[in-house]
Amino acid sequence: MTLQSKHFSPLDPASPEPIYRQIYWRFRGAISDGLLAPGDRIPAARALAKELGLARGTIDTAYSLLTAEGYLLARGQAGTVVAPGINVRKPSARAEQPLHAATSIRHKAPVLPFQMALPALDAFPRKIWSQIGARCVRATRIPDMANPSVLGLESLRTAIATYLQVARGITCSPAQVFITSGYRNTLALIAHALLKPGDRVLVEDPGYLPTRQLLAHLQIEVAPVPVDQDGMQVSQGVSSTMDARAAVVTPAHQSPLCVSLSLPRRLELLEWATRQQAWIVEDDYDGEYRYVSRPLPALKSLDRDGRVLYAGTFSKVLFPGIRLSYLVVPPAQVERFEHVSETFLGGCPELTQAIVATFLTEGHFARHIQRMRKLYGERREATARGLKKVLGDRIRIDLQPGGMHLILRLTGAQSDRALVERLLAAGIYAEALSDWRVRDETDSALLLGFANVDSEETAERLGKRILALM
Amino acid sequence: MTLQSKHFSPLDPASPEPIYRQIYWRFRGAISDGLLAPGDRIPAARALAKELGLARGTIDTAYSLLTAEGYLLARGQAGTVVAPGINVRKPSARAEQPLHAATSIRHKAPVLPFQMALPALDAFPRKIWSQIGARCVRATRIPDMANPSVLGLESLRTAIATYLQVARGITCSPAQVFITSGYRNTLALIAHALLKPGDRVLVEDPGYLPTRQLLAHLQIEVAPVPVDQDGMQVSQGVSSTMDARAAVVTPAHQSPLCVSLSLPRRLELLEWATRQQAWIVEDDYDGEYRYVSRPLPALKSLDRDGRVLYAGTFSKVLFPGIRLSYLVVPPAQVERFEHVSETFLGGCPELTQAIVATFLTEGHFARHIQRMRKLYGERREATARGLKKVLGDRIRIDLQPGGMHLILRLTGAQSDRALVERLLAAGIYAEALSDWRVRDETDSALLLGFANVDSEETAERLGKRILALM
Repeated sequence: MTLQSKHFSPLDPASPEPIYRQIYWRFRGAISDGLLAPGDRIPAARALAKELGLARGTIDTAYSLLTAEGYLLARGQAGTVVAPGINVRKPSARAEQPLHAATSIRHKAPVLPFQMALPALDAFPRKIWSQIGARCVRATRIPDMANPSVLGLESLRTAIATYLQVARGITCSPAQVFITSGYRNTLALIAHALLKPGDRVLVEDPGYLPTRQLLAHLQIEVAPVPVDQDGMQVSQGVSSTMDARAAVVTPAHQSPLCVSLSLPRRLELLEWATRQQAWIVEDDYDGEYRYVSRPLPALKSLDRDGRVLYAGTFSKVLFPGIRLSYLVVPPAQVERFEHVSETFLGGCPELTQAIVATFLTEGHFARHIQRMRKLYGERREATARGLKKVLGDRIRIDLQPGGMHLILRLTGAQSDRALVERLLAAGIYAEALSDWRVRDETDSALLLGFANVDSEETAERLGKRILALM
Repeated sequence: MTLQSKHFSPLDPASPEPIYRQIYWRFRGAISDGLLAPGDRIPAARALAKELGLARGTIDTAYSLLTAEGYLLARGQAGTVVAPGINVRKPSARAEQPLHAATSIRHKAPVLPFQMALPALDAFPRKIWSQIGARCVRATRIPDMANPSVLGLESLRTAIATYLQVARGITCSPAQVFITSGYRNTLALIAHALLKPGDRVLVEDPGYLPTRQLLAHLQIEVAPVPVDQDGMQVSQGVSSTMDARAAVVTPAHQSPLCVSLSLPRRLELLEWATRQQAWIVEDDYDGEYRYVSRPLPALKSLDRDGRVLYAGTFSKVLFPGIRLSYLVVPPAQVERFEHVSETFLGGCPELTQAIVATFLTEGHFARHIQRMRKLYGERREATARGLKKVLGDRIRIDLQPGGMHLILRLTGAQSDRALVERLLAAGIYAEALSDWRVRDETDSALLLGFANVDSEETAERLGKRILALM
């Protein structure tokens, strides 16, 4: 092809379409007309700029846009070519709407049935959320763009302190609330502030794997403590690891067994922490979701001596993609955490924080939780009924008062790991209880998220697919 | 007061205003009418719910909103009272517009003249940004809310890879790009993946303090290496710390001296890293901002042996409040960084990532950089002229080809630290070069950000205030 083809002359400087975009469209035209074929090398930006009498940057911008949309492929020193795999005959709807690229370039893996730790996305108030989002985007002013606080947006810290008082019985000031970008971020912050390599930490067994992984990576030794119907067996843990510096627990609904840490054990744990000057990390990842009686107050609400670090998150109550969590530290530790935050925290985008703060202060948050509590209670019952109807005596379901997943005990000699592999291969999500354990145990169970199972019929249908793979 | 007052009956269930909000307004009314005075205890939510025949949650929501807005103050076991300091006579504009709270609850410290590391916020294309933001908010679909990738949004990683090829001469695939929430986050990720406690790392002296702080906190030893007109004195550094495992450098515009690392030193550093199997961290915090000739390609563009970790950020090109940075790792290290990211990274909110990806792929980013390069070049000259005119021989300004701040050398026996303290007290931002040094040196200089100084007249006016404090 020649650069003097119809595709490259004349450009219109008077057009409302910027020059880079005119060039962009001309390349698109040249590709769809077959003047440029897949694999063809395109002119160097410098050469084309000279040819057309334009700034190099203009050509770069056009090329960068074409590359980002998949029309061109940059090959480093080998130059840039028309993307080999491109289908030039049938431009997709997307290709025709480059201005709406925002909708199409956010591509994701599909959500599988029984996905764990995923709230009911179909029931999320997306309309209200979008309205608040658009309002917050428009309300962005110059000072909002500068000087971000690594500790978090003041309005969000205040809204969280208020919410925790009402919903979880925790009395704290906004200064005690630190905004983080997720539980891992929260836990790393705690470790950097209060622990050092070589320290020993009690964790639940079975328990959440990322907790063990992160601590181990920081050269902190984890000491697994068995969990029974009343939660972590505190006496056994503190007596077998006398020098433990901290304990990480999930008191509301133990992760993954969904049992609650009993009041005597809560008090025992607090008493131990005070006596040993040790720390308790309360991972309250879904404390809001209790279906029988009201949610229990947080362990933190009983903390008289400032030993509990409370880790909350919006992943389960809003949605995981939001990447927003928080940590409440005892008043005496605020300064230390501020210092460590300055060193380690990147801070979270203020737009997201402003949207969540507004969602909280306008009352949408509290209403959403109430609606979800009702919905999940129904879905939990329906899922359990549907699965039981199909799977009968092959399983046993112990319904706990809270949580977002069911525990399907396998009554036969079935291996949960092997079954999970077959299920995943068939497009059904499940986790094996064995994978959450440190010590070997003989019991075998599937963990199944129920929040996105919309009816008993759906559960029955999925149950039949599980049955076929047992 | 009695609950049977006009303020609490009757509520209107048919109103489009939700019940909790009707209650909210009635409390507001009761406070502004003086029926409830500052310090008055308000009814317990449970009691009021019973009285009004409403769900407890409805009252909680109203109370939580009133508390968040400062009308009520929760006092734990002591109950909730009308906020003692509240001014009931003159409700502010904000108080009259609770539905637009989003605009008012984002309260920030003012930006001071000469603030460093702050782009020209007045020149940011806020309208385009808001439009894209609103579009991305509306385009949020259910899969966008689930399964966030801790590595970053695919479309953003692709757009960054394309941008780096065009703008910084770096050839990399999207899989090599990791999205982080700021430079500290990036550096911690590198340290977790490639370094261990006790390792020694070369850093520039003078140099960026947070780099030294973060490494020191991870028990990594920093070895300061002097900087001259050609950047870090590489030979001296590598010969005096033979066992260094890594070097952190700012090759484009040394932070804070703004000099560029010369080509011979770049090659020497790369050769050292290959020989010692050590790592180079290239902190390219403002590589785009060069005013004389075109920006230098990144050091990473010369990396043939996969030793360079490239740290980029959107803080300087977009705005600091965005909290979005990125890291490019060598292909052989991708798997290791994916593993460490799963352990440590919280991930960044996908909305922000989608907005930035769109801003990049639609070409706004490239145009914005070009406009800023021109504007900063002008502001830099104007600031230097204005200050020189007023301060004369008391200062010497060495204009370097790039950067976002001026270095005002103090020619007298003046202490930069003492002067900075007086300037900050007078509301003028400045940093003392001495504070950026590890070793003692006798030279004394002020670091002044010029990106927000809009004219020579402004610089003169500020220069007079500096003169008065000298």
